[in-house]
Amino acid sequence: MSFTAKNPEFAADVRKSFAAQSIMQTIGAQLSRVEPGIVEISLPYRTELTQQNGYLHAGIITTIADSAAGYAAFTLMPAGASVLSVEFKVNLLRPASGEMFLARAEVIKAGKTLTVVRADVFGISGAERTLVATMQGTMFCKE
Amino acid sequence: MSFTAKNPEFAADVRKSFAAQSIMQTIGAQLSRVEPGIVEISLPYRTELTQQNGYLHAGIITTIADSAAGYAAFTLMPAGASVLSVEFKVNLLRPASGEMFLARAEVIKAGKTLTVVRADVFGISGAERTLVATMQGTMFCKE
Amino acid sequence: MSFTAKNPEFAADVRKSFAAQSIMQTIGAQLSRVEPGIVEISLPYRTELTQQNGYLHAGIITTIADSAAGYAAFTLMPAGASVLSVEFKVNLLRPASGEMFLARAEVIKAGKTLTVVRADVFGISGAERTLVATMQGTMFCKE
Amino acid sequence: MSFTAKNPEFAADVRKSFAAQSIMQTIGAQLSRVEPGIVEISLPYRTELTQQNGYLHAGIITTIADSAAGYAAFTLMPAGASVLSVEFKVNLLRPASGEMFLARAEVIKAGKTLTVVRADVFGISGAERTLVATMQGTMFCKE
Repeated sequence: MSFTAKNPEFAADVRKSFAAQSIMQTIGAQLSRVEPGIVEISLPYRTELTQQNGYLHAGIITTIADSAAGYAAFTLMPAGASVLSVEFKVNLLRPASGEMFLARAEVIKAGKTLTVVRADVFGISGAERTLVATMQGTMFCKE
Repeated sequence: MSFTAKNPEFAADVRKSFAAQSIMQTIGAQLSRVEPGIVEISLPYRTELTQQNGYLHAGIITTIADSAAGYAAFTLMPAGASVLSVEFKVNLLRPASGEMFLARAEVIKAGKTLTVVRADVFGISGAERTLVATMQGTMFCKE
Repeated sequence: MSFTAKNPEFAADVRKSFAAQSIMQTIGAQLSRVEPGIVEISLPYRTELTQQNGYLHAGIITTIADSAAGYAAFTLMPAGASVLSVEFKVNLLRPASGEMFLARAEVIKAGKTLTVVRADVFGISGAERTLVATMQGTMFCKE
Repeated sequence: MSFTAKNPEFAADVRKSFAAQSIMQTIGAQLSRVEPGIVEISLPYRTELTQQNGYLHAGIITTIADSAAGYAAFTLMPAGASVLSVEFKVNLLRPASGEMFLARAEVIKAGKTLTVVRADVFGISGAERTLVATMQGTMFCKE
């Protein structure tokens, strides 16, 4: 799919909002790609973010997937709008191991009020990239 | 529903596993209730855990809901088993504001391999308790 | 929770819309309860509705759960509005056996645009009632 | 992704099981593609399957998506296994209009016990094909 942004400042607006999400700094996540309908967030592995077996906690996987999904939707919203998560569903496919994680979100359907987004989260170790989780969710545009 | 634990050490085993989840210490979450089929986790509000509007990030809501859900399932598993999250779906009902948050998980159906759990997350301000999110998920028992 | 209907004709409007859902007649489903925020639909077992093992197909379970959920939301919408399903998630808990099935939907959070609903589906055999599936979904109010 | 079937009779086994799903004949659905990890089911529009506005009911969309998803998972299971739906989540993207509907399911991750599948449902009118719904679900392999 190919989308066109209505807001010419979409990339700057995503970056500004991302910078205001304190949790992103707390966990060490970074915005690594912002295009119309597509946003990626990367997160280096840290033991402070793990569950009982040393893997990244499913809630932290969700944290980067949800922000990536919300901002992917936000890139297509009109200037001045704000974005809210309505709901998401996450399937955890493999243990979240890796030196780095990448959440890649892509809009499936952009609507006036609701936007449906998919986000895949990969664990990256050296040159290897493994899909560890996938999210399907709905974002709300508040004008 | 009423459930009976097969593992007499279920409460100690939940506490031990919870203590091994580094993320819980990182965000400041605590185990506040452990009964057969029911687990509660509480989390004081901290600005380090917020999204762009100052509310608790949906991923952090999910972090405490998922751990509560996993441990609610774990209380009913046989001794020596371990628990994994298969999938969850979260509906975000209201802005996650509050001085404190409580994730309350309860098993809906306990199976040999799969256990279905519901978790509600409340925002608490003084005497007021508001439902901010609800999760429906599946946990896997690895023996 | 307790809800108040804004539309004094909510029950008649639900019945009229239900009567217009051809699929309900095709499968033999009936509206068995309509209250503010709560709707129940019942469906007698028929072999024409089954999957390969003779149980009610998960899609038919979903059909009655989704209509019950949509109408539960609809009871709380203003007069003249229409209801659309945004999304739902269904956990299938047990084989869907029974002489009769009952989908019971209840609103969790009613909003101006979005309403979150839970629906449980029971299989009924004589005096025994077993939870076979549970749904968590979002409905849209189109005014 | 590319998958290899373990069961050399996977296609015949899918066809046999599909033929035993009475609901497929009741609604007029047909198996239109069976490959390792991919299954498609097609369904002509019929007014008997509609909701109150004349669109295909979300539960019928789910019926073909769930069967396609289950059989996509089944193609990768060992001979003699049976498949059960654990859970699914459906986002309804557009009104389900069309002369014909196609559910296309593809395995995302095949595991020994659990297989995660995505299914897209398209409405087809002449040469036009529109995505009307998307499902993300989990299937269970019972050996």
